[in-house]
Amino acid sequence: MTEPRIWTAALIVIGDEILSGRTPDKNISQIALWLNVQGIRLKEVRVVPDDQAAIVEAVNALRARNDYLFTTGGIGPTHDDITVDAIAAALGVGVVVHPQARAALEQYYATRGGLNDQRLRMARVPEGADLIENRLSGAPGIRIGNIFLMAGVPYIAGEMLEALNGALDGGRPLLSETVGCWVPESEVANLLADTEKAHEGCQIGSYPFFREGRVGANFVVRSTEPAILHACIDDLARRLKARGFDVVLGEI
Amino acid sequence: MTEPRIWTAALIVIGDEILSGRTPDKNISQIALWLNVQGIRLKEVRVVPDDQAAIVEAVNALRARNDYLFTTGGIGPTHDDITVDAIAAALGVGVVVHPQARAALEQYYATRGGLNDQRLRMARVPEGADLIENRLSGAPGIRIGNIFLMAGVPYIAGEMLEALNGALDGGRPLLSETVGCWVPESEVANLLADTEKAHEGCQIGSYPFFREGRVGANFVVRSTEPAILHACIDDLARRLKARGFDVVLGEI
Repeated sequence: MTEPRIWTAALIVIGDEILSGRTPDKNISQIALWLNVQGIRLKEVRVVPDDQAAIVEAVNALRARNDYLFTTGGIGPTHDDITVDAIAAALGVGVVVHPQARAALEQYYATRGGLNDQRLRMARVPEGADLIENRLSGAPGIRIGNIFLMAGVPYIAGEMLEALNGALDGGRPLLSETVGCWVPESEVANLLADTEKAHEGCQIGSYPFFREGRVGANFVVRSTEPAILHACIDDLARRLKARGFDVVLGEI
Repeated sequence: MTEPRIWTAALIVIGDEILSGRTPDKNISQIALWLNVQGIRLKEVRVVPDDQAAIVEAVNALRARNDYLFTTGGIGPTHDDITVDAIAAALGVGVVVHPQARAALEQYYATRGGLNDQRLRMARVPEGADLIENRLSGAPGIRIGNIFLMAGVPYIAGEMLEALNGALDGGRPLLSETVGCWVPESEVANLLADTEKAHEGCQIGSYPFFREGRVGANFVVRSTEPAILHACIDDLARRLKARGFDVVLGEI
């Protein structure tokens, strides 16, 4: 069997508010889950400050070695929104006002005080870019080459993801199933490793927790092959039961 | 005035569960806030999979250019816990069982089924490492050089941070104050930029929101200098009021 091609993406989260701890990030998991539905695997994430050199370094490192690169943050109208300029600098292209973005902003602000110079900043794109629709706030996302610039505000980023649904080439999604078990993971570490070895094409992750005074763990099996996945999860549940542990199909 | 030295840290979040979207990360903001209290600035974060080459690359890139490097995840007893081996590989040192870690685990597991080979994995450290106390689960964190290996489970990572309180050299904390305002940020983008320019040593971040059918934004001023920070936030509030906007001291 030839290995199926794996499509990968990287994400750059741009913003001092994440690095200062002020704003807990919500885009990493949102984009990871969305990518997986598209058959694309999130391979790496970097969080960088509102600093052009830092953004450029991350963009150039990640865009070359992944099929897709997403960014969140820094595409608004204020002085700390420098993502468009940084991406243009990374690509060595200029920044232009996109006529469709200008039109969308004119329409959006027609009943909201009118388009001014500050708002027009949100129509600026790296030269050669296309727009990603945003029905919520008038300011579009931006696509240039394999780079996708999304809003930082999670619900607007989510809306932009929706506009991209099905638009990107991908491969087989990484499937996962979980068995939960009331056991300290350290009692079954060898069992987990042996089970993973017995099922090529599967990875098993162990995620321990402590709840209601009891120790347990969720064991997540991941594979792109449904048949292999099911065989592995069944085998894992069987082995855990054979050792006398309480097993729950699905997450505890 | 000479610029005060800024102490920096980087963070590597290790784990397939974050990149798959299964587990929303909570350690970035927790560690960012803790670092700031120590007078250390979180400069960059990378999220990498449970893959030794990826971890080694990130470790070697970040440990050299920051005062401190933190990692979360991958220090448990199971086969997917490869952080210790990856850090040792990055540093070119061996992996040894730390006698104090073994003793701590022996004590912890004395009433919990005893120490076995799988649990003993949690006593393995890169050669030359010291331990970071963990009163919650027996498995210590690890310090080697400027690298700090923390648990992935957020409340255990938090406990390890507590054990490090005040132990690291730092500089002046980055202070911040916020004014909230019921205004679309695009109406005051120039005002924000002008205010920032008028107060050297301050950065102003703009964080828009949409609530109860209204648009607003929190403007966060950051500086290491209390006097400069207060002058800037006062000036910003004054300018916003002069334009007729509702201003709230503190976050909306």
